[in-house]
Amino acid sequence: MSEKIPYKIYLTESEMPKQWYNIRAHMNNKPAPILNPQTLKPITVDELSEIFCRELAIQELDETNAYIDIPKEIQDFYKMYRPSPLTRAYCLEKALGTPAKIYYKFEGNNTSGSHKLNSAIAQAYYAKQQGLKGVTTETGAGQWGTALSMACAYLDLDCQVYMVKVSYEQKPFRREVMRTFGASVTPSPSMTTNVGKKINREFPGTSGSLGCAISEAVEAAAAQEGYRYVLGSVLSQVLIHQTIIGLETKIALDKYNVKPDIIIGCAGGGSNLGGLISPFAGEKILGKEDYRIIAVEPASCPSLTRGRYAYDYCDTGKVCPLAKMYTLGSGFIPSSSHSGGLRYHGMSSIVSQLYDDGIIEATSVEQTSVFAAATQFARVEGILPAPESSHAIKVAIDEALKCKETGEEKTIVFGLTGTGYFDMVAYQRFNDGDMSDYIPTDEELEKGFATLPKVE
Amino acid sequence: MSEKIPYKIYLTESEMPKQWYNIRAHMNNKPAPILNPQTLKPITVDELSEIFCRELAIQELDETNAYIDIPKEIQDFYKMYRPSPLTRAYCLEKALGTPAKIYYKFEGNNTSGSHKLNSAIAQAYYAKQQGLKGVTTETGAGQWGTALSMACAYLDLDCQVYMVKVSYEQKPFRREVMRTFGASVTPSPSMTTNVGKKINREFPGTSGSLGCAISEAVEAAAAQEGYRYVLGSVLSQVLIHQTIIGLETKIALDKYNVKPDIIIGCAGGGSNLGGLISPFAGEKILGKEDYRIIAVEPASCPSLTRGRYAYDYCDTGKVCPLAKMYTLGSGFIPSSSHSGGLRYHGMSSIVSQLYDDGIIEATSVEQTSVFAAATQFARVEGILPAPESSHAIKVAIDEALKCKETGEEKTIVFGLTGTGYFDMVAYQRFNDGDMSDYIPTDEELEKGFATLPKVE
Repeated sequence: MSEKIPYKIYLTESEMPKQWYNIRAHMNNKPAPILNPQTLKPITVDELSEIFCRELAIQELDETNAYIDIPKEIQDFYKMYRPSPLTRAYCLEKALGTPAKIYYKFEGNNTSGSHKLNSAIAQAYYAKQQGLKGVTTETGAGQWGTALSMACAYLDLDCQVYMVKVSYEQKPFRREVMRTFGASVTPSPSMTTNVGKKINREFPGTSGSLGCAISEAVEAAAAQEGYRYVLGSVLSQVLIHQTIIGLETKIALDKYNVKPDIIIGCAGGGSNLGGLISPFAGEKILGKEDYRIIAVEPASCPSLTRGRYAYDYCDTGKVCPLAKMYTLGSGFIPSSSHSGGLRYHGMSSIVSQLYDDGIIEATSVEQTSVFAAATQFARVEGILPAPESSHAIKVAIDEALKCKETGEEKTIVFGLTGTGYFDMVAYQRFNDGDMSDYIPTDEELEKGFATLPKVE
Repeated sequence: MSEKIPYKIYLTESEMPKQWYNIRAHMNNKPAPILNPQTLKPITVDELSEIFCRELAIQELDETNAYIDIPKEIQDFYKMYRPSPLTRAYCLEKALGTPAKIYYKFEGNNTSGSHKLNSAIAQAYYAKQQGLKGVTTETGAGQWGTALSMACAYLDLDCQVYMVKVSYEQKPFRREVMRTFGASVTPSPSMTTNVGKKINREFPGTSGSLGCAISEAVEAAAAQEGYRYVLGSVLSQVLIHQTIIGLETKIALDKYNVKPDIIIGCAGGGSNLGGLISPFAGEKILGKEDYRIIAVEPASCPSLTRGRYAYDYCDTGKVCPLAKMYTLGSGFIPSSSHSGGLRYHGMSSIVSQLYDDGIIEATSVEQTSVFAAATQFARVEGILPAPESSHAIKVAIDEALKCKETGEEKTIVFGLTGTGYFDMVAYQRFNDGDMSDYIPTDEELEKGFATLPKVE
């Protein structure tokens, strides 16, 4: 039989999705309402609009509309770097000697290096549409900040990024990419905000934290006329924008009459995972199709597999709304794992509810096995994956090897969210045999749970 | 009129080229024969096979076959990262307000970050096919070494890279990418070769040079049974492999009945430029079509625009064959321009002859104007270009602005050879306003010309 599936499936422009998908409209159990951090009551669009753009506030709370039109301008921007290829991993299959058919949706072929751009352009667009002058945000390693800088440059919107000081100093490349796209990048804690000044006073010489950077970005947005704060993960609005990943994947598979058996994604805040799996999970909920859907998280930060399903703050700074989610507690301190993008204490409320309802399952993997899988993948598929993405690679390889045992020709689809060019310090540690694994003890988890807020 | 050309044109697998193009078969004036560095007589396939794989030696000297079959295995590897997109720069056109139609062929969407992989896989394949154990090479900034490491990992071939010591120490990311792909990376000068030991003895603490790294790689290949040396640019074999760029471009344009008026590429050793323009220059030679073809070089290293057309050594180590080419002399010391890939004293013998025959023209541009063009391009097109590639962007923008003056709707195609993620030190200098230009004086050029060998 001649092989008909190409190495890479690209959609034509006319095949590209014109709407995002909002799975909440189809969920039997909706995620619990998000709460105003001041009142601990369900937050309203008006209240949310004080932090985010109004249109995004509406999307955040929308539980009824299954499809949301992608504005023409965002569709045009998507055309600059999308569709992303759905790649048949022929070489990986051959290297593993598996009868499984493996596909991956690769989001790394854009200058931000990841899927983050899908939501960055949407958030920047709605800010522009609302007549705002600019947006503020925080960034750790810099992937989200880069994506937002690109989107803002395209729309001629001011972009102010608070970058965790240690990253600002140790990752000057990322910082310069943002500056090249016209963003102003401020090391956090800075002396430009009250919260920054306070932290600098109390902890002289601190190298900063994401929680502090969020607080500074929120304060800076509030202090400036015509500014709003934007966030790159966790929120339902972000997950909605990321459904472009899953929708394209599904259209590409349908084009070749391929039905996946297993869909795998890495889980940090949950927005990329949710975006990839939404169209499939939706069909599963509606009883149209059945799929195994697997969320993969690091063993060092196991919010789904070992967390509690409870209300918690989305940010360590406690300025964003609270959500009911699988969480380790906002006070949980993850180990210095190299998968920075997965070091998040909580999980998207949508993904949490899907997991609680048994629509998706979850597993956790250890760092050294992840880097081994990443290296194996890179050598045969020619892509250097981000450590975060490699969590999905690890489990995809494991599932493919199970097929080798059983002889089953399962179809496995995984999300490859980004590239690892800026993670070479971690790769070096792995190459040198200097990498170790870390699994938090129950006692350590209890300390995190103790920081959960008491919400009736 | 509705716009029919998509933002990105991808070829299907069946549309992809099955043969490379060897323009020498159609050239009225063939490039002068390359010479054995020992005898200064035209080199034979047998002599050349002592340095390179036999099949590559044959390609190097082939002046008669216009088309060379791409082996099935290389076609399969190409399918992992090709076709590269031919992108219509709608956003750049709009930003410039030009009636010109601008297209760019983007070679940066692979882990090596550039077009280098097109030849790396070919050279590794022929080495493997000949039953060799491995290959040796040199690398400066690391782009070529990365590409070769990827190709060798795929074919399970040993890859030994001599990396200029200053880059080895200052660009650890690139080094780790190569190691992740299984290559051994040795800082040059090393203590593993005679030439390395000698240089370390004579110049203790030297930070190395590309010439020295070439000499070490050649010595290492000769000293090991089953090894050959491979080179990433300048050679005609490399240019042949790079014609995949131009062939794909032409097929994509033909698909939409687009005929370019101007084709622009950056010129270092000339292989990417030659690869892009070959199919178009071939038609021009054969009188089928007419095109303006422009090679862009840095004003700091102007081999075409200010060099001599003479026999010269291809490498500063004088171990590779001599070629007649436009050159500044192998002893010319280029300024510390940041476009490392364009800091080469000579030029592909094919490109040189095409230039001498008036088939292509050449121009030089200064560094700060190149980074300004790069930044402008990045902000609207969402790709952070390599400084080398940005030389072509600069001239494409200039030509598009001329169209704005005259109202002409010219079609401009340029080659975007790679991404600039590892060039952020240069971008930072530009962002900080710290970048300066440098144009060598006539006296400085004369010093370079004085190093030209005397060949009758």
